[in-house]
Amino acid sequence: MLKYQAVAHKILTHIEENKLQKGDKLESIEALAERYETSKNTIIKALDVLDSKGIIYQVRGSGIFVRGHKRKGYINLLEMKEVTSSLKNFNTQTEVLALEVQISEAEIEANLELEDKAELYYVKRLHAIEGRPFSIEESYYLKEFVPYLNQEIAEASIFDYLERDLELGFAFVDHFMRIVTLAPENRQLLNLRRQKSGLLIESVYSLKNGRPFNYKKTLFHPDEAQFFVMGQNEF
Amino acid sequence: MLKYQAVAHKILTHIEENKLQKGDKLESIEALAERYETSKNTIIKALDVLDSKGIIYQVRGSGIFVRGHKRKGYINLLEMKEVTSSLKNFNTQTEVLALEVQISEAEIEANLELEDKAELYYVKRLHAIEGRPFSIEESYYLKEFVPYLNQEIAEASIFDYLERDLELGFAFVDHFMRIVTLAPENRQLLNLRRQKSGLLIESVYSLKNGRPFNYKKTLFHPDEAQFFVMGQNEF
Repeated sequence: MLKYQAVAHKILTHIEENKLQKGDKLESIEALAERYETSKNTIIKALDVLDSKGIIYQVRGSGIFVRGHKRKGYINLLEMKEVTSSLKNFNTQTEVLALEVQISEAEIEANLELEDKAELYYVKRLHAIEGRPFSIEESYYLKEFVPYLNQEIAEASIFDYLERDLELGFAFVDHFMRIVTLAPENRQLLNLRRQKSGLLIESVYSLKNGRPFNYKKTLFHPDEAQFFVMGQNEF
Repeated sequence: MLKYQAVAHKILTHIEENKLQKGDKLESIEALAERYETSKNTIIKALDVLDSKGIIYQVRGSGIFVRGHKRKGYINLLEMKEVTSSLKNFNTQTEVLALEVQISEAEIEANLELEDKAELYYVKRLHAIEGRPFSIEESYYLKEFVPYLNQEIAEASIFDYLERDLELGFAFVDHFMRIVTLAPENRQLLNLRRQKSGLLIESVYSLKNGRPFNYKKTLFHPDEAQFFVMGQNEF
């Protein structure tokens, strides 16, 4: 992690720990540089990161303000890694429905930009929040990058395992969203009776060099899935 | 528009006009600085903007690459201003269903962070793509910032009018998404028979000083709404 990223992380922690709200003002760049014992330049770069993530906004001649919003229970789509880690303040459960090594099929090859067949870890999991079914996740990891997975890892956080144990952090992700009609077995897993639609998010995670290594399809319960994204108008 | 923003815009235009694909390599920073007759520093800032927007990715020691993706018909959620402008390559139609001045109600006051009653322009529109109903949009503009609207403007692009004529560009936007059961009149507008669910996106647009001025609720046809977002993992 680069210096300015570490400082950005510290400022974010400060905002979270002090439960700062939308419109709350941060210290000046000079004061922040002093507090975090770094240069004004590093603070400016750290603030740019927080700005691009929708955490703060900067008003020229006026100051730096917390952006935030007031809605509870919405998941930040761009911060979403795994349901369990995205909903820290809730009691979450993960059930592993399948875990096996597969050979890639056409759909996976297209999404992972594979030119040949490849070995993959396939993991299917059911996530629940406070005992209520929340999402069905099917995830495909290229074995070239993720040589080992087991039940215990899949029951916890696969992302944590990738980052901590394999030092395999993704650099960027593309999410594709649409409403789909749920198959009967998925309606049963999500405990749906009358409703037939769910939200499908397909996600492709790539490494720093642009290489996709993880393709994921997540079906969300129509009443439970609430997402937000924050945008800037830079052009 | 600042110098680096103008350069970022030029690079984006270059990518679009030359239909560059994912993985296509851009010129070096030095060559870009020469081409756009500017400093390396300005190019670096322009590339950071394009990076944060998911348009390019930079691989240290290797170069600058076009990010893009290969799926057609998906709207970039973070670039979405109006349906008509987000789907440039399609034939779109807009029908104005209502246009009137209203006094704010509690839901609007909460979303626009109003402490008192305020006058608003309320606009309800039906958007169609290639003749197929796509979305129903209800939008509330604070009259303090948008003193005038008419049928002709609402039939075209209200965003273009705000930006060009009122010089009222938003600085940031929060989108909140969930699946909702559609009311019978909305199912009729969207020409839905069996399906009962749609995607609701609520959007709050704010000015540079953090002040929200436009709250919008858009209901999307379940078969037509396809969105993508691109994320970075910066922490």
